[in-house]
Amino acid sequence: MDMSGAPGTGERLVVIGGDAAGMSAASQARRLRGPEELEIVAFERGHFTSYSACGIPYWVGGDVPERDLLVARTPEEHRARGIDLRLRTEVTDIDVAGGRVRARDVDSGAESWTSYDRLVIATGARPVRPGLPGMDAPGVHGVQTLDDGQALLDTLARARGRRAVVVGAGYIGVEMAEALINRGYEVTVVNRGREPMSTLDPDMGRLVHEAMRGMGITMVNDTEVTGLRTGGDGRVRAVVTRDAEYPADVVVLGIGVRPETSLAAAAGLPLGDHGGLLTDRAMRVRGHENIWAGGDCVEVLDLVSGQQRYMPLGTHANKHGQVIGANAGGGYATFPGVVGTAVSKVCDLEIARTGLREKDARRAGLRFVTVTVESTSRAGYYPGASPMTVKMLAEQRTGRLLGVQIVGREGAGKRVDVAAVALTAGLTVERMTALDLGYAPPFSPVWDPVLVAARKAAGAVEQQR
Amino acid sequence: MDMSGAPGTGERLVVIGGDAAGMSAASQARRLRGPEELEIVAFERGHFTSYSACGIPYWVGGDVPERDLLVARTPEEHRARGIDLRLRTEVTDIDVAGGRVRARDVDSGAESWTSYDRLVIATGARPVRPGLPGMDAPGVHGVQTLDDGQALLDTLARARGRRAVVVGAGYIGVEMAEALINRGYEVTVVNRGREPMSTLDPDMGRLVHEAMRGMGITMVNDTEVTGLRTGGDGRVRAVVTRDAEYPADVVVLGIGVRPETSLAAAAGLPLGDHGGLLTDRAMRVRGHENIWAGGDCVEVLDLVSGQQRYMPLGTHANKHGQVIGANAGGGYATFPGVVGTAVSKVCDLEIARTGLREKDARRAGLRFVTVTVESTSRAGYYPGASPMTVKMLAEQRTGRLLGVQIVGREGAGKRVDVAAVALTAGLTVERMTALDLGYAPPFSPVWDPVLVAARKAAGAVEQQR
Repeated sequence: MDMSGAPGTGERLVVIGGDAAGMSAASQARRLRGPEELEIVAFERGHFTSYSACGIPYWVGGDVPERDLLVARTPEEHRARGIDLRLRTEVTDIDVAGGRVRARDVDSGAESWTSYDRLVIATGARPVRPGLPGMDAPGVHGVQTLDDGQALLDTLARARGRRAVVVGAGYIGVEMAEALINRGYEVTVVNRGREPMSTLDPDMGRLVHEAMRGMGITMVNDTEVTGLRTGGDGRVRAVVTRDAEYPADVVVLGIGVRPETSLAAAAGLPLGDHGGLLTDRAMRVRGHENIWAGGDCVEVLDLVSGQQRYMPLGTHANKHGQVIGANAGGGYATFPGVVGTAVSKVCDLEIARTGLREKDARRAGLRFVTVTVESTSRAGYYPGASPMTVKMLAEQRTGRLLGVQIVGREGAGKRVDVAAVALTAGLTVERMTALDLGYAPPFSPVWDPVLVAARKAAGAVEQQR
Repeated sequence: MDMSGAPGTGERLVVIGGDAAGMSAASQARRLRGPEELEIVAFERGHFTSYSACGIPYWVGGDVPERDLLVARTPEEHRARGIDLRLRTEVTDIDVAGGRVRARDVDSGAESWTSYDRLVIATGARPVRPGLPGMDAPGVHGVQTLDDGQALLDTLARARGRRAVVVGAGYIGVEMAEALINRGYEVTVVNRGREPMSTLDPDMGRLVHEAMRGMGITMVNDTEVTGLRTGGDGRVRAVVTRDAEYPADVVVLGIGVRPETSLAAAAGLPLGDHGGLLTDRAMRVRGHENIWAGGDCVEVLDLVSGQQRYMPLGTHANKHGQVIGANAGGGYATFPGVVGTAVSKVCDLEIARTGLREKDARRAGLRFVTVTVESTSRAGYYPGASPMTVKMLAEQRTGRLLGVQIVGREGAGKRVDVAAVALTAGLTVERMTALDLGYAPPFSPVWDPVLVAARKAAGAVEQQR
């Protein structure tokens, strides 16, 4: 990291948002610059800092016994490191020309301006909430924040029945289905798409659908929620669709999130087609020398398609924070972009994807071949070997790997990492067939499932020639 | 695969060796060319074809209930595919100038010559057997072949005591230690090296040592076996070293293997410094247009050091076989080389390595930094998160990844694959810090252990600048 270009004495770095990206940035900047060189002020409108939102389903489901385990670093720990953290304080305005932000104390309503030399925007995402009747009724929950998780747990503790409806079948939806099953609920998932997990192609989503059905989850696909029915006490009673009603003692919304960029938009900062802030490789907001942004409020470069993409994930937020903190602290680091890796599970089913789906590839103007293979997690004769389906897309002519999707049991999910690195490096499927992956019977068949797929894909590329 | 240059009608391909490399080559060639175009004759001196030698420890240990599960393809299956397979037939001479091999029926002793147009040498490896007193006594076993495994199981069934000594602490040694523990034996491992697993640096081998001790295995390091003591019945009674005697009802040798290239050497074919056959990228024996070699009898190119290396592993043998079969069948394929990935386990300890150890890097003339980090397999708060140590080597100045070693529990071993692909692609540790690896709490901390190591290594490279 280049330490030249250090900020002058007495400069102030202001951070908006106290979760992964914001506080990683603050911490990294503090590591590079002591308090005498750089004052750091961080505003967070909630009660918590640096927590794992991705862990909420496991806390709700009971795998994680208490909330505080999800907090990587408390406000007190940040303050002890010399960060002036202001909780329950919401930034309401960014005055770019004046180099200042206006913040309001959430409890007292008092407002004041704070000037900055360098600014970090890490305002995160807001959950999609369709404006339907009953959407705000008691018993209807998002799972975006720790406060949301606590509210849902309170509802579960009080609920009289054991029927849960999850709206949405993306990764939050399926993880919450697992959590509710673990809590002893009968779970119905209502999903707008053709199959669950729209981050997969439908043929792979179909495997998830079948596995969820096998777990006793009722999957309702191709179905739009039209409203929620409430009872006399105002609490939710059912999820209503055009054709049916699904009784519910609790409803969990997992419909997805959008970048929280209303502040940035009002300040005239550049947003992309997905509504996220646009940055350069140093995570600097385009056209603004002293403003950085990262985490769930930015768009990222998809290295496979070359297009901008919205990919809100804690792992990216942490990386962004590191990069921002290095740069805002006077060093140098970059975030090259993503290849679109995601892994999740529902009970013992592991679901992973990286790179482009068929429709992504088409949208990017790429022609491709696609292959699907069945293999096993370990040597077929070794105890615990479980079946796994691997789908692979490769570009026609060049044979470049474009994407991989995996559905299987134990040992399936993290295999996608091999493809993630191959995508990063631009490997062809032909080159992948000779990858020197770890082999021993308890870990893999002699041809790893990813290699089996690569061989078949290389054959398909060849046939297209 | 290029189908031009097909062999003419009535040509004969002769394969020496009926295990992974040889029979993969035969099968792949058969896939490309029917029997009317290419006759395929394969000689195998043993009883079996295409079996998983890597699975023998798990069969001996009882995880795999029967021998036949280790056979991927039987002689009958090969014959049904039009391969003229001659079991219990040992090739005793290769007449390169005459284009023929001499083979002897092991049972009858009858010999005959068979001519070839194309030849595949897949003679495998032979176990190292120090010429020490008692080494051939009953109760002393190698575990190289299915016949070896059966003989060991017979000894275990008859053994009166429950004391086992394993000589050698490489991957076969530690896997056999696990197998014998599973069989209820008290296990002592006598090891010439400073620590077990000399494929790791000693600091990482130390972790394996400590874990094995924790499993109740007696590890004796830095110790040369000087002989075996036998009893009045001729059976082994103890393993003798300079300083001590270790009582043994059974002794398992896991000292390593050497390329079985005596035939090739006698025929004047080119061997490398490690005693293995030298080939080009198409696995063609150097200087010989119509002879290929693969599997445990060849040396391979180490892509990280640029040097030749001996790396006998079933996964390479299978790849070699595919490449040879494609080329010998008139197509085109190459084996680019290895990065030196290996993964193994002893009970619940997972051990993985790829790329160069410190001494390999020094030998290759590379200057490097090394870092070691502790992390966990899953998010720290998620049930089953287990500790993992990752060591990483990166080249000074360039920051290119040179090697990774991992010791941990469930979820540790296959993480090495990320490093294997990164080595293949020549990624720097700085670039690796931004790798888009799969993250969700049940699968990984938000910073995957490999990323944590990469960050630390990138910092160390920077500091050396």
